[in-house]
Amino acid sequence: MTPTRAVSPTTPTLPASTGPIPAGPRDQALRDRAARVIPGGMYGHMSAATLPPGFPQFLERGRGARIWDVDGREYLDFMCSFGPIVLGHAHPKVEAAVERQRVLADCQNGPSPRMVELAERLVALQPHADWAMFAKNGTDATTLAVTIARAATGRAKVLVAAGAYHGAAPWCTPRPAGTTPEDRAHLIPFAYNDLASVEAAADRAGKDMAAVLVSPFRHDARHDQELVDPAFARGLRALCDRRGAALILDDVRAGFRLDLGGSWAPLRVRPDLAAYSKAIANGYALAGIAGGDGLRDAATRVFATGSFWFAAVAMAAALATLDALEAEQGIQAMVHAGTLLRDGLARQAHGYAIRITQSGPVQMPFLTFAGDVAGGTFDRANVFTGEAARRGVYLHPWHNWFLSAAHTEEDVRLALEGTDAAFAAVRARFGGDL
Amino acid sequence: MTPTRAVSPTTPTLPASTGPIPAGPRDQALRDRAARVIPGGMYGHMSAATLPPGFPQFLERGRGARIWDVDGREYLDFMCSFGPIVLGHAHPKVEAAVERQRVLADCQNGPSPRMVELAERLVALQPHADWAMFAKNGTDATTLAVTIARAATGRAKVLVAAGAYHGAAPWCTPRPAGTTPEDRAHLIPFAYNDLASVEAAADRAGKDMAAVLVSPFRHDARHDQELVDPAFARGLRALCDRRGAALILDDVRAGFRLDLGGSWAPLRVRPDLAAYSKAIANGYALAGIAGGDGLRDAATRVFATGSFWFAAVAMAAALATLDALEAEQGIQAMVHAGTLLRDGLARQAHGYAIRITQSGPVQMPFLTFAGDVAGGTFDRANVFTGEAARRGVYLHPWHNWFLSAAHTEEDVRLALEGTDAAFAAVRARFGGDL
Repeated sequence: MTPTRAVSPTTPTLPASTGPIPAGPRDQALRDRAARVIPGGMYGHMSAATLPPGFPQFLERGRGARIWDVDGREYLDFMCSFGPIVLGHAHPKVEAAVERQRVLADCQNGPSPRMVELAERLVALQPHADWAMFAKNGTDATTLAVTIARAATGRAKVLVAAGAYHGAAPWCTPRPAGTTPEDRAHLIPFAYNDLASVEAAADRAGKDMAAVLVSPFRHDARHDQELVDPAFARGLRALCDRRGAALILDDVRAGFRLDLGGSWAPLRVRPDLAAYSKAIANGYALAGIAGGDGLRDAATRVFATGSFWFAAVAMAAALATLDALEAEQGIQAMVHAGTLLRDGLARQAHGYAIRITQSGPVQMPFLTFAGDVAGGTFDRANVFTGEAARRGVYLHPWHNWFLSAAHTEEDVRLALEGTDAAFAAVRARFGGDL
Repeated sequence: MTPTRAVSPTTPTLPASTGPIPAGPRDQALRDRAARVIPGGMYGHMSAATLPPGFPQFLERGRGARIWDVDGREYLDFMCSFGPIVLGHAHPKVEAAVERQRVLADCQNGPSPRMVELAERLVALQPHADWAMFAKNGTDATTLAVTIARAATGRAKVLVAAGAYHGAAPWCTPRPAGTTPEDRAHLIPFAYNDLASVEAAADRAGKDMAAVLVSPFRHDARHDQELVDPAFARGLRALCDRRGAALILDDVRAGFRLDLGGSWAPLRVRPDLAAYSKAIANGYALAGIAGGDGLRDAATRVFATGSFWFAAVAMAAALATLDALEAEQGIQAMVHAGTLLRDGLARQAHGYAIRITQSGPVQMPFLTFAGDVAGGTFDRANVFTGEAARRGVYLHPWHNWFLSAAHTEEDVRLALEGTDAAFAAVRARFGGDL
């Protein structure tokens, strides 16, 4: 099997699209086997059933900004494993730290010194933080944060933005199959960036308001992203102070891509609790919460544990990830590459007279087509990302993308070759609308 | 710093106890730092605050049946990281599989072929299983199993044994701080091994009975363990069939230590869903559920995902772990060493005229002192395990212990040297009661 090198610095010409390309033979064989032993053939956000033709289901390898599927096809990766890969795949310093720790121990009868070092590091990095705890899933972190807020206040109600994603437990899944009404009995919705709606929700909660749970910007899947209005963030802080409730920042998706001090540090809005996961350890399974002294006692009283929550390797990876993000000015690198990508996509869309919206921070970009939004479909997005994928550019039709510090100017230039052809395909299929 | 080699094949003599030994200097320094940046200094089942003096808080290294704390003290490990270490620490074949996978990729935009291979392996191993799904925490697996049962039946009530541990989410934590009554609104308790109590609980649930959730034997912390009555297991199966509810086996703690086909395979009682974690990957963070075709559709409909749930390294570790357990007859090895340990402890206790109870499978032993049970304390257990720990034998005063396939006859012989001295200390402090 000859690897298809769709994108590489030495072979910058991208293959032409020739209509629907079937899944690679190894990918198809694995899909057939998976259909027998995995419900639906695959599940969750990594099911290729939610993607257009052109995307692989199974992946084999990753290095820097590049990934390879099981048929040897190479892609420039703009999903970064849906967020965890913030320095690039297999970052040498992270992998070296992992290897040093792995030969000692990972999961033991007690934590390793890495846990203390990482808690100290987070407390030093984050203005709001006096302590930290660790777990495995982002959902562990948001659930634990809500539990701590309830324990601290003795109240139950939690205000959440309508449509926001805070995890995959019954209290917060976006799909209610198998959940009960009681799982969400104490959630009260508000509209993101609408302080009046939060005040109304707080009035509904009354004296039972435990917390506001909010993401640092609006990154609901299938929607244009929306940056936070600083006045909204400050208003949440003031409202929580006034009502004696905890402000919980769900920084699981955005954390360590916008600001190492927490995604609202630039606004100088300090949450009482922040939840982290995804990018904290460059792909190693870890979640964390960082809180202020006002919630330390409650954090001590709640029941929080897991078989692998204290394991050392992911913590060693997190220490190395934070070091490398600082040393390599990783966030600036993502902003630089992300800006080039956004500018290039805007030029291309304009050139093809296609109306698009690009939203969110450039490190976590998203692109929608006006024609799709008007029709309530992702038809153009599916053609666009499917055509890009078969040209070796891995984007996503309905979920925000992620850049890593490994993306170079040349990577973006090559990616834009692929997106140019993808825009051309959208234009050919749907026409222009500018 | 000279390592204290409390137990080693070449120096079989154990150091004499000389009264309370302070924490080692590195351990104490880390405890002091942790007290500032981690709530309570540590949390969960790995907090040394729940252990008597003599135990370290922080661990450094593990090999086979041996672990070393941060001050270089060596222990024979009979906790196995509270279960995950089933082949011994740093098992060469597992570590080699991990390293092969790590240099390819771990967390990507899609699963690796390892996921299909592991699902196929579990389905082949487990008579009840037609499909499998994977997650990170044992709690993920039990929560997902309950969610699937509810989705399948359209019902809400779940019958659970009073006092049983099924995880660390608000619906099941043993400590209610920060949870709400609604989190447990649909749980109905029964008494383990008491079929009449299950029938009564099922009558309470009526037409809203979704599932029975049960561990393969009673292993509630702080209590003597209780093996399952085969008639009880068969009765649960019949009751679930009669009432159209799902039988969920919570095999998170015991799975792969009793039988590779699932802990009730020897009884020929097939659950509809089984939840696994802990030992499935010899310490790597992984959880799984395996289910029958009757629940496949429901498993497809529920929302189940996590950033690290599809990561390849832990799945490669699981495949190697299952292979090694088979190839090395790991379960038989644990039974052999566990039987030697149980027999030796019984002889020693009798020799000191101390009344004890040893309970549970020999691979997951537990020991209580009659004098403690009568007084509702763990005074003797604390002296016993604290004295054992300072002699290099890592047991636990109130949680069941775990053997691994790495425990040799010589390891048990050396451990019994330590426990002999520990029994002597109990006798000196509390007297005999036989």
